[in-house]
Amino acid sequence: MLYSAILAGGSGTRLWPLSRAGEPKFLHSLTGTERSLLQATADRIRQLSAADRIYVVTGTAHEAAIRGQLPEVPAGNILVEPSPRDSCAAVSLACAVLARRDPDAIMAVFSADHLIGDEQRFEAAIRQAAATARDGYLTTVGIRPQHAEVRFGYLKVSEALPGGARTVTQFKEKPTREAAASYLESGQYLWNAGIFAFGVRTFLAELARQLPHLSAGIARIADAWDGPGRDQVLAEMWPGLEKISVDYGVLEGAAATGKVATVPADMPWSDVGDFDSLGESLPTDESGNLVIAPMAEVVARDVSGTVVVSTTDRVVAVIGMDNVVVVDTADATLVCARSRAQEVKQVVEELHGRGQHARL
Amino acid sequence: MLYSAILAGGSGTRLWPLSRAGEPKFLHSLTGTERSLLQATADRIRQLSAADRIYVVTGTAHEAAIRGQLPEVPAGNILVEPSPRDSCAAVSLACAVLARRDPDAIMAVFSADHLIGDEQRFEAAIRQAAATARDGYLTTVGIRPQHAEVRFGYLKVSEALPGGARTVTQFKEKPTREAAASYLESGQYLWNAGIFAFGVRTFLAELARQLPHLSAGIARIADAWDGPGRDQVLAEMWPGLEKISVDYGVLEGAAATGKVATVPADMPWSDVGDFDSLGESLPTDESGNLVIAPMAEVVARDVSGTVVVSTTDRVVAVIGMDNVVVVDTADATLVCARSRAQEVKQVVEELHGRGQHARL
Repeated sequence: MLYSAILAGGSGTRLWPLSRAGEPKFLHSLTGTERSLLQATADRIRQLSAADRIYVVTGTAHEAAIRGQLPEVPAGNILVEPSPRDSCAAVSLACAVLARRDPDAIMAVFSADHLIGDEQRFEAAIRQAAATARDGYLTTVGIRPQHAEVRFGYLKVSEALPGGARTVTQFKEKPTREAAASYLESGQYLWNAGIFAFGVRTFLAELARQLPHLSAGIARIADAWDGPGRDQVLAEMWPGLEKISVDYGVLEGAAATGKVATVPADMPWSDVGDFDSLGESLPTDESGNLVIAPMAEVVARDVSGTVVVSTTDRVVAVIGMDNVVVVDTADATLVCARSRAQEVKQVVEELHGRGQHARL
Repeated sequence: MLYSAILAGGSGTRLWPLSRAGEPKFLHSLTGTERSLLQATADRIRQLSAADRIYVVTGTAHEAAIRGQLPEVPAGNILVEPSPRDSCAAVSLACAVLARRDPDAIMAVFSADHLIGDEQRFEAAIRQAAATARDGYLTTVGIRPQHAEVRFGYLKVSEALPGGARTVTQFKEKPTREAAASYLESGQYLWNAGIFAFGVRTFLAELARQLPHLSAGIARIADAWDGPGRDQVLAEMWPGLEKISVDYGVLEGAAATGKVATVPADMPWSDVGDFDSLGESLPTDESGNLVIAPMAEVVARDVSGTVVVSTTDRVVAVIGMDNVVVVDTADATLVCARSRAQEVKQVVEELHGRGQHARL
């Protein structure tokens, strides 16, 4: 049976006013159901990992909310970081703590705030990724690109491995439009979905090789984790840990030595990076509108390609609009051209500058 | 000294969600000041009519609010209609009641929910209209058209009269686009602003000539108005009164016999028919945006030609939008293309059909 680590971090600034600093997107349902993105993530891996094999890495601010949302996950599996140190520290912490409890563990890593459109393909991909991880690879799940997206990183694939996996020769950062188009055409690139599987031993060996300082710090923390000295060691070591993503910190370097594989997956996937991508990820009505407003009274007249999200029971009336985002929450309303959805982040910064912290 | 009658009726459906059935637009400030449109109307005629010469005609639903907003107007000058019977009944009632208190009165008639952009020109126009009324004409104020507007009625002018007034030969209903363009080009047409002045005797004589049934009913009501029988006579007569506008009922027919004059006025004027016309009537910022949101925190990024109205202290963030209307109230949000602002009425009908009466 597979272990899973869910990374529950990030503020989701580009989904303001839905997500807030105090209530990031993984605590919300974005799909109109009762389950938050975090809960949906846990539901999705239920067939792969029993609840006592699910770990969650998060920050102090969200610990209580997460315990409330995932009561089935053992308290000792909720790993709370004193401060955010990026994904390499988070993944390494989960690996190192787990390695001390089960040294042979194979662990899959998921983000708490992604949407997956096909549960069966997802499950098959993770099972294969776990199998490839057992063969000694740091394994990712790569999404076959649907279009020349510039918001994602890409994986360049090479040789075929058993079970449909491929070796990964390069990690590519967010490309230019031109590069994204050539990636799409070549058929040699997959979207890096931030879904991983590896043997904890394999990962920690690569970590030690590439980031010895971070590795040593994590090792000291993990050694103390299940004993009385945890808080003291955390306070001592955590602030000095290198802030780096797991892709840059470990996977890129491992790919260069042939240790990274990917399982290509054809499934709808979204990191829900902004309201535009939300509208692309979820099923729309015949006019291309996505309406997530379980309590609101929504009236739309001659509206197309539009994303309407409401968390209130207010009326939202939209007339004669194409390709816009309308978000209505208790204390803020956002109206945004879909093509400008990334700029929501700048609005949050503007409000921050105006001292409107209560609205952020 | 001139008498004034302010007609305070109509629901302002096209300004939903700002105006409501229970709180029509004249009770609101649309200009970002503390004064409602009704109060601004009273303020504007203060130099022309002392407070005890101001009359207000309204419905039962708004009587209390109006008394609260205009405490200086004597209680006996607030004329309350049991039900709406259109403007001819309203004007006739004011004329007939006033005629019994001061038979020689000259009365000007104003709508409670218009915006006027130049107080001095307004005052000069009304003074001239009163003078022309004293000469025996049913006198209107005509606004020189600024563009080929199809939402307004027009006055066709003819001979010059003393003081710059002109005779009116025809009332034209809302024209087609073509007709409006030819009216504008000819220089022979003015916008019918619904501002009138006439001797009460002159008006009542025309009413009796053209609408004898309505005239007789109003006469019976006015005879009883200042005595103990008012309510009984109102209950008996009012529901049977003809529902017709004062333009169709009296002024058109009077124009055909040469009894109507107009005072042409060059001044910004708006009937605030919808949010689009509001944006055209009030001063905008350098990007053409009109923001009326005294309590709200408004963030606009790359926004032009847009009307933002908020009655709350919520955040309203708008990104990358041109020529839209965003209205935010306690229980409803409207996002609308400016060119479709008239369709707000249909949204109200839709909500009505859904039983959302509390939001209307």
